[in-house]
Amino acid sequence: MENTHNFILPKTNLIGIGAIKDLPNELLAWKLSKALIVTDKNMISLGYVENVEKILKNLFISYDIFDGILHPNPTVSFVEDGLSYFKKGLNVLRNYKLIISIGGGTNHDCAKAIAIVATNGGSIIDYEGYNKVTKPPLPQISINTTAGSGAELTMFAIIVDNSRKVKMTIASPFLTPYITVNDPIFMTTMPKEVTASSGFDVVSHAIEAYVSTEASPLTDSFALDAIRIAFEYLPRAYENGNDLEAKEKMMYANIMAAMAFNNAGLGYVHSMAHQLGGFYGQTHGCYNGILVPYVFEFNSASIPKQRIMKLCEAMGASTQDTSQAIDIIIDSIRRLTAKIEIPGKLREMGLKENDIETLSQNAMKDITVFTNPRKGSVEDFMSLFKSAY
Amino acid sequence: MENTHNFILPKTNLIGIGAIKDLPNELLAWKLSKALIVTDKNMISLGYVENVEKILKNLFISYDIFDGILHPNPTVSFVEDGLSYFKKGLNVLRNYKLIISIGGGTNHDCAKAIAIVATNGGSIIDYEGYNKVTKPPLPQISINTTAGSGAELTMFAIIVDNSRKVKMTIASPFLTPYITVNDPIFMTTMPKEVTASSGFDVVSHAIEAYVSTEASPLTDSFALDAIRIAFEYLPRAYENGNDLEAKEKMMYANIMAAMAFNNAGLGYVHSMAHQLGGFYGQTHGCYNGILVPYVFEFNSASIPKQRIMKLCEAMGASTQDTSQAIDIIIDSIRRLTAKIEIPGKLREMGLKENDIETLSQNAMKDITVFTNPRKGSVEDFMSLFKSAY
Repeated sequence: MENTHNFILPKTNLIGIGAIKDLPNELLAWKLSKALIVTDKNMISLGYVENVEKILKNLFISYDIFDGILHPNPTVSFVEDGLSYFKKGLNVLRNYKLIISIGGGTNHDCAKAIAIVATNGGSIIDYEGYNKVTKPPLPQISINTTAGSGAELTMFAIIVDNSRKVKMTIASPFLTPYITVNDPIFMTTMPKEVTASSGFDVVSHAIEAYVSTEASPLTDSFALDAIRIAFEYLPRAYENGNDLEAKEKMMYANIMAAMAFNNAGLGYVHSMAHQLGGFYGQTHGCYNGILVPYVFEFNSASIPKQRIMKLCEAMGASTQDTSQAIDIIIDSIRRLTAKIEIPGKLREMGLKENDIETLSQNAMKDITVFTNPRKGSVEDFMSLFKSAY
Repeated sequence: MENTHNFILPKTNLIGIGAIKDLPNELLAWKLSKALIVTDKNMISLGYVENVEKILKNLFISYDIFDGILHPNPTVSFVEDGLSYFKKGLNVLRNYKLIISIGGGTNHDCAKAIAIVATNGGSIIDYEGYNKVTKPPLPQISINTTAGSGAELTMFAIIVDNSRKVKMTIASPFLTPYITVNDPIFMTTMPKEVTASSGFDVVSHAIEAYVSTEASPLTDSFALDAIRIAFEYLPRAYENGNDLEAKEKMMYANIMAAMAFNNAGLGYVHSMAHQLGGFYGQTHGCYNGILVPYVFEFNSASIPKQRIMKLCEAMGASTQDTSQAIDIIIDSIRRLTAKIEIPGKLREMGLKENDIETLSQNAMKDITVFTNPRKGSVEDFMSLFKSAY
């Protein structure tokens, strides 16, 4: 009997108010000479990039800045722009020793994709799926500015292939960044709707990791505590952008949920939300907010009773009856999404009924399906999309 | 206000029955040519070393074996023997690209120490304390055979300097192994007393990390769950060496407690147990078993009420009253150590009353004192040693 649950994470995670101050020491130990910064113009105007530039200048590390990441749901073209920007510059690609991503999940994911193609060649489309990357990408340092995607620390990069309207999942332990920075100093300017969508992304990561077929005691600890924290602090972080305690707690919940799903995997919420993002380009966390109750109900027959009870407890309720616990969980999630003003139905976020069959077929191919606790058919996906329509 | 809680771990942790089978892939990605195996003769006779040799041979990685680790509480002389063994051999030190430790905490700690001196020069005594290592040691892969010390994944090496009768703590993020393997295949032969002492070491790591001044939400999740698991499964693992479920659970508890204390630090139990180990050389986990109730009582006034309540809950009890909770915790620990037949008093494990003053002075210098929740004087240490005498 084999039963392995490997646990893969960035070796060094700098966390908390002022954590960025530890970055110079880490960089010094590496003796690196030249960095690519991957970011967007908003990060520059907020002064976040300058903050990192100062650190690099002090260490005599030269760098170039690619700020061509234009919107969330990053596309293949951003990756190609990044690659050609670096090729066209004074510096040829192979001189860079390091990629530094500054921003939210979009920027980290684009940096991962650029880092792959920089050392492995070809097109980023070649690496869709699990373990297609054969050579180590450029090492990555990710400086995170949102509490949501977990992309700063995971082995996943999600890139939209517009030609197929598909959100590709590229997964490889090689993509694990070397150093992550989660410093609230870089998170003070999150708009309210980003707090909601990225915050619910955390909840969906934690729930899917907890009910995953690859869950382990390590991922369970983090997943359940991320749920406990998010149910308590997400509404506070949403209502009051200056509630630093709530923001810090959500930062921890994000890290814990990401460490959990990085190793346990995800499920149908993400298999479906990736397709919606690919087709309609709206916010990932909001798609998740609408989908979680439907997918949880679908999965519930395949989730061990003890896990349902613990989920229910983590959401602050308690009961002896499994079917009552399922109702409580679904109701708790709906009350949470209502508090943070996530829409209730997918049609409010672009879904067209005519697309449901294609979306369902594409969802079946997403790698996140493999760790969902219940196996579904195309018809099951269609009926889930229709229920949430 | 700065408030950072960095989280440092080996990037790749292969865990579970059959996890060793993933090691070749990891080694292949590294393209390494020559390894030092650091182990002891028992690991060779059990066939564990041969198991790893086969993997290296298949990958055409050449290796030498140093099996001169003679007993727990490893000494400076083991480290020096290891270094001179490698220097005297056909291979000069710098040809090794990798150290592989096979065994329990003793072997991992010795390998860390050899790896430090191999690249930094000098004597291992030069590196006592925190962050004295300035160059990266040889990268280490640790294949673990006990569920206890956590040394396979931590940034700490504990080496006894016999000339001073001191257990030195050498701590540096550089010491973090690259890959850890916790595969129960290598743990089936643990003797009953090792299950008890290493199992209680887990409990003491988790308790000290949970009440540490450097505890974070990440270390709290793992610490509390490690306590929950150990209180349920350690007596089972002890009573029946063939209870594989209990052994597997304790393996997870060890990993979780080690990930917690690696980042939260430890406290006076370890400050004191290190000295006892240095003076009398008996089992670390048993010293901890005797000390935890006394140190917990001493600390309790400085531990936040909420943490006392959660500790009490994690041990399976519940109350609304803090002082009752403290009594329950102390009583629960004593009942656990009684079940696994750990002695009740330090005099049963070599302590001589005349040594208490020196032991107390040495304990004050141990780096684990910095994260203990209550600050004590030499007199406090003396009174703790006397109470536990």
